[in-house]
Amino acid sequence: MQIISQFGEDCRRLREVSPLVHNITNYVAMNLSANALLAVGASPLMSSEPLEMEELSSLCDSLVINTGCIESGQLEAMRIAAGACHTKVKPWVLDPAGAGASRLRTDTALELVSEYHPSVVRCNASEIITLDGKEVRSRGVDSAASCEEALDSAKHFAAQYGTVVSVSGESDLVTDGTSVFSISNGTPLMARVTGMGCTASALTAAFAAVDRNFLSAAVCAMALIGVVGEMAALESAGPGSFSAHFLDILASIGPTEAAGRINCRLL
Amino acid sequence: MQIISQFGEDCRRLREVSPLVHNITNYVAMNLSANALLAVGASPLMSSEPLEMEELSSLCDSLVINTGCIESGQLEAMRIAAGACHTKVKPWVLDPAGAGASRLRTDTALELVSEYHPSVVRCNASEIITLDGKEVRSRGVDSAASCEEALDSAKHFAAQYGTVVSVSGESDLVTDGTSVFSISNGTPLMARVTGMGCTASALTAAFAAVDRNFLSAAVCAMALIGVVGEMAALESAGPGSFSAHFLDILASIGPTEAAGRINCRLL
Amino acid sequence: MQIISQFGEDCRRLREVSPLVHNITNYVAMNLSANALLAVGASPLMSSEPLEMEELSSLCDSLVINTGCIESGQLEAMRIAAGACHTKVKPWVLDPAGAGASRLRTDTALELVSEYHPSVVRCNASEIITLDGKEVRSRGVDSAASCEEALDSAKHFAAQYGTVVSVSGESDLVTDGTSVFSISNGTPLMARVTGMGCTASALTAAFAAVDRNFLSAAVCAMALIGVVGEMAALESAGPGSFSAHFLDILASIGPTEAAGRINCRLL
Repeated sequence: MQIISQFGEDCRRLREVSPLVHNITNYVAMNLSANALLAVGASPLMSSEPLEMEELSSLCDSLVINTGCIESGQLEAMRIAAGACHTKVKPWVLDPAGAGASRLRTDTALELVSEYHPSVVRCNASEIITLDGKEVRSRGVDSAASCEEALDSAKHFAAQYGTVVSVSGESDLVTDGTSVFSISNGTPLMARVTGMGCTASALTAAFAAVDRNFLSAAVCAMALIGVVGEMAALESAGPGSFSAHFLDILASIGPTEAAGRINCRLL
Repeated sequence: MQIISQFGEDCRRLREVSPLVHNITNYVAMNLSANALLAVGASPLMSSEPLEMEELSSLCDSLVINTGCIESGQLEAMRIAAGACHTKVKPWVLDPAGAGASRLRTDTALELVSEYHPSVVRCNASEIITLDGKEVRSRGVDSAASCEEALDSAKHFAAQYGTVVSVSGESDLVTDGTSVFSISNGTPLMARVTGMGCTASALTAAFAAVDRNFLSAAVCAMALIGVVGEMAALESAGPGSFSAHFLDILASIGPTEAAGRINCRLL
Repeated sequence: MQIISQFGEDCRRLREVSPLVHNITNYVAMNLSANALLAVGASPLMSSEPLEMEELSSLCDSLVINTGCIESGQLEAMRIAAGACHTKVKPWVLDPAGAGASRLRTDTALELVSEYHPSVVRCNASEIITLDGKEVRSRGVDSAASCEEALDSAKHFAAQYGTVVSVSGESDLVTDGTSVFSISNGTPLMARVTGMGCTASALTAAFAAVDRNFLSAAVCAMALIGVVGEMAALESAGPGSFSAHFLDILASIGPTEAAGRINCRLL
């Protein structure tokens, strides 16, 4: 599959280029996201301060915005940073964490999508169904729906806004509105570790910095996380030891070994 | 002991119901708290944004407010969230972290208690002595007093405000002002790991979501943490490896095994 | 070397005195910093709230200010806390994380240095070169320069402001503008773990609380971190498992054993 032959190339470029990834993200997942970015060779930068957004947007190679602990004080920074990426044609990823749990989260996500056109929307099933305007029971930041239920919404939303939608779940779905990739790696343990979805979003931003085919970048990021996650689960006694194994393997796995474990198909 | 026969029932209900626990908490303990909530089967949600407090308060099954990194910008969110729980008769837990270290922390804790009547005040010895209006040397967020010294204050404060007071220390004390339970599980290592007290508060909020006898809920939460903590300590080379073992065991221990290790007595 | 004979004394005093270290720091490194402070025997306190700065400044034994996730809302707290330490002659450490990445970071660091005279400026090579007014490529919070390139700037800056400058890198440099110590402990793995530099700054503040020779305090802190880091690396499969081993060893190593592993020389 051509998109997977891109995988090794993307992994190598991450270590060569070491893209600077700017994160406007939540406090729970910051540490894991930063360590995951370092593990794949990227350099993380965290800031939500409007006064330095323009300068950081000039420095950074890509951006991730995550609404997991959204604060109204962050909105201005989100708009400046997303706007700068849009203007400068830099890749940026939106993780609409908790969309559906509050109007603030839903409205912010929709505003950022329609105004600043993210390269990828990386989310769970409930979130994309909500953003697509359908009714779904919200469970805060955890999904109450399955990826299968989210397929139509993901395709529709991607096509409507000209973005890539990447939905994590038992099998992950990644679509640009036309093609749909299904990635069946990963482990149920990943849903029991806080911040894994946010980390997927951060890594998607890193891949997007070195692969301007954002469909490919999003697939490769989810594939890498899934492969590393299932390897880490084999060594872990539970969700506590999982993170350490996940980061260790993420930092050391060779692109060829990882590629060999990817279980991805075009639907 | 009847309260301990409730323990297994509470643990099972946590996994069945998967209560959504809203956390207004500090940045240091957020990650550990969220992972501990996931480990017992609950779903964590972190937010301090006033604009979404009413909606999140409708969604959530219980709330924990922790003043460990208090910011004046969080006060409005604390009032709305605690007020909503009080009005809707939802359980909520106050962790007055650092009460005594500043007037802001002490005053905020006392205001929240007197206005919004927490189900449980989960704290250390110095904090409850301070809140009860006595003089005690403050050591920031670490206690400078023992649980024995805090017994009278805990009983008095619980009776005065009609709440349960849960004080962690060498032996934990939990009281509703009349009955006093002493839980002698746990390990000194737990005091060397940041955020363990905050995690105890978050788990107390989870138990309170499934057990409306808040005295029982608070005892069961402290017993579970103590039992898991002492098991984790046996496998840990120090405070660094402790957290991973703690979460692994918290996620996997059976209620019957845990109950068999509880060392709790009615004083 | 006399400064190293001070090392054991400092380590012992940390456990005896258990200094209260106030942290105004970033969200990524808070948890690791707090756990590292607990591991060496200190008591961490995190707060950026202006309303309690005066009181906490009275309580605390030393202070660290880190600009890693700087927010304009923290500036007032930084000024009050640094001002109080300056007035009360309490040790305080500045970590100008990301200086050079934005004017806000650079200007804030320079203002705090010139107005409130930190005991130690703990940073990386890019940051001290920037603060010394030279041009250097910024890579966000990661350094784009080596310690050797930073030597002149570190000496000049230390002499100009009457402070100690402690620069981490492959070999760490610590100087008061006259003497220069080079510490060749540590491991490349430490640069792949987020928050290690911030943790070095927090530990420097802890050492400064018990050793008023700030040159000595800064050298001892960097030596301890380097020694523990290289021991932890031997037991770690990667950056994920490193943190746990780092904290375990930091909490358990005897001063004599650690001192025997220090590789420090006066340039």
